[in-house]
Amino acid sequence: MMKQKSKPNILVVNDDGITAPGIKNLIDVMKELGNVVVVAPDGPQSGMGHAITIGKPLRFDRVDLYEGVEMYKCSGTPVDCVKLAVNKIFKGKKPDLCVSGINHGLNNSINVIYSGTMSAAVEGAIEGIPSIGFSLDDFSEGADFSHCKKFIKSISEEVLKHGLPQATLLNVNFPKGAELKGIKICRQANAKWAEEFDERKDPYQRPYYWLTGVFQNNDKGEDTDVWALENGFVSVVPVQFDLTAHHAIPILNSWTFDVKKD
Amino acid sequence: MMKQKSKPNILVVNDDGITAPGIKNLIDVMKELGNVVVVAPDGPQSGMGHAITIGKPLRFDRVDLYEGVEMYKCSGTPVDCVKLAVNKIFKGKKPDLCVSGINHGLNNSINVIYSGTMSAAVEGAIEGIPSIGFSLDDFSEGADFSHCKKFIKSISEEVLKHGLPQATLLNVNFPKGAELKGIKICRQANAKWAEEFDERKDPYQRPYYWLTGVFQNNDKGEDTDVWALENGFVSVVPVQFDLTAHHAIPILNSWTFDVKKD
Repeated sequence: MMKQKSKPNILVVNDDGITAPGIKNLIDVMKELGNVVVVAPDGPQSGMGHAITIGKPLRFDRVDLYEGVEMYKCSGTPVDCVKLAVNKIFKGKKPDLCVSGINHGLNNSINVIYSGTMSAAVEGAIEGIPSIGFSLDDFSEGADFSHCKKFIKSISEEVLKHGLPQATLLNVNFPKGAELKGIKICRQANAKWAEEFDERKDPYQRPYYWLTGVFQNNDKGEDTDVWALENGFVSVVPVQFDLTAHHAIPILNSWTFDVKKD
Repeated sequence: MMKQKSKPNILVVNDDGITAPGIKNLIDVMKELGNVVVVAPDGPQSGMGHAITIGKPLRFDRVDLYEGVEMYKCSGTPVDCVKLAVNKIFKGKKPDLCVSGINHGLNNSINVIYSGTMSAAVEGAIEGIPSIGFSLDDFSEGADFSHCKKFIKSISEEVLKHGLPQATLLNVNFPKGAELKGIKICRQANAKWAEEFDERKDPYQRPYYWLTGVFQNNDKGEDTDVWALENGFVSVVPVQFDLTAHHAIPILNSWTFDVKKD
C-alpha cells in the first residue's frame, strides 16, 4: 500500500514511561511499518499536559529494552521527549510519523487537554510531523492491547499515505476489549471533570489533598468521541493547536473598551 | 459601569508563584473591581501547560501577604490551583471572574499551549467561569506593569458586564513599556519555537541538557497577536478548549481504512 521507496522513520513516545506495556505494543506495530526510534519518559508522566522543563536540566540516555529498537529514556515530560528527539536524534531531518501511546486510560473529550500522551502528539504536529496519539480505556498494568493493533496499523498507514491536513493531528481512542465495530471520525465531546479533593492528615496532623473526580458528559451528540466509544467504535478526532475561537472575534469587536486616560 | 448589586467575586491565579510582582499588580487592579481570592503556586510553575498533579498529594495553605486579601499558596500546578479554589474555597458557588497573571513574559501565539498562566485561565473557562489570562513582554523581576493596569481594568469590566461566548476565554498580552495604541482583537499567530539544547557535562562527566530556543513567526497576517504586539497594541485573542479541527472531519471521512480481518 505504501509507495515510499525506503521505509519511513517513526518516532514513538508516550507518557506512561518507557517500561509501560502500552508503548511496547505500539513499538511492535510500528516495527512492521518502518524504522523505529523511541524516546520516552524514564517514569510515569500522566496528566502532564503540554508541560516543558525550563527550570532544571534534562537527562537523556540510550537504553536497550527491546532487541533491534533504538531507544532513549528522558527525565523530562512527554513534550520534552519530542523536542529532544527532533533536535538530538533526528537532528532536523524530521521523522515521517510521530505516534504516542498506547496510553493506559482514555484521552477522549476534555482529557485531550490534560494528557501527556496527546500533548506529545500535539508537539509532533507543531514540529510539522504527521502525528497520532493512541489510548485505550484500560488503566491496568495487565491491559490487553491486542484488539487495537490492526486499527493502529491501518490508521498509521493511511496517515503515512495521505499526510494530515496542515496543523492537525489525530486523537485515537479504543474501547476496552470485545468486538470493535469499526472506526468513527468524531468531534471532541463537550464534557468535563467534576473534581473532588480527598483531604487527609499527615503524621504531623497537617492536611494534604488528593485530586479525584468524576467525568461528566454534557453532550448528547452522536458525532462525539464519547458516543463512539460507548457504542463500540474506535474514535478518531482531528485535533488542532490553533486555539483561536474565531467565532468570538466579531463579538469582541462589538465591545466598547472604556480605557481611562492617565 | 457595572450593574451588579453586590461586588463580584474574583479568583486570581498565576504561574510565576504567589510572591511574583505580576500577581501583586493584578491583585491591585482586581481589588478595585470586587472581592478578591488568590490561589497561586508556592513557587515558579512556568511552562507547566495544562499539567495536573495526580501521582502525589497537594499542599494548600492560607497565607497573609497583602493586607485584606484572602490568599492561599498551593504546592501544585496553576491548573491545580484553579481546581482547588473552585472545590475548596468557593465550594461550587462559582466566582464571577477568574484572572491569571500578570505573567512575566509573553504568552502570545503558540506560547498559549505551554503557558501555565493561560492553562489556569483555560481551566477557569472549563469550570464555566469567565476567565482571562494577562501577560507582559518582560521577564525581569523588576518589570513595570503600570501601563497595563487601565487596560486590565477595562477588559475585566467588559467581561463582567457581557460575560464571554460559551466555552471561550481571553488571552491578553502587553508590549513592554511605552505608549500603547489601544486594544486589538486578534487571532493566534502561526509561529513556533525552534529548539536548541545546550549540552553540558556534570561533575561526574555525565551529559545533561538545558532547553533553549528561538521564536519563529511564520505568519505575515496583520490580524495576529504577534503583529499587534510588534505594533504597540494590547493583543486580545479569544481562546477555546474544543480542540477539534472541524474542517478536517470531511477529509478523514474520505479515507478508506483497510483494517485486516483477524
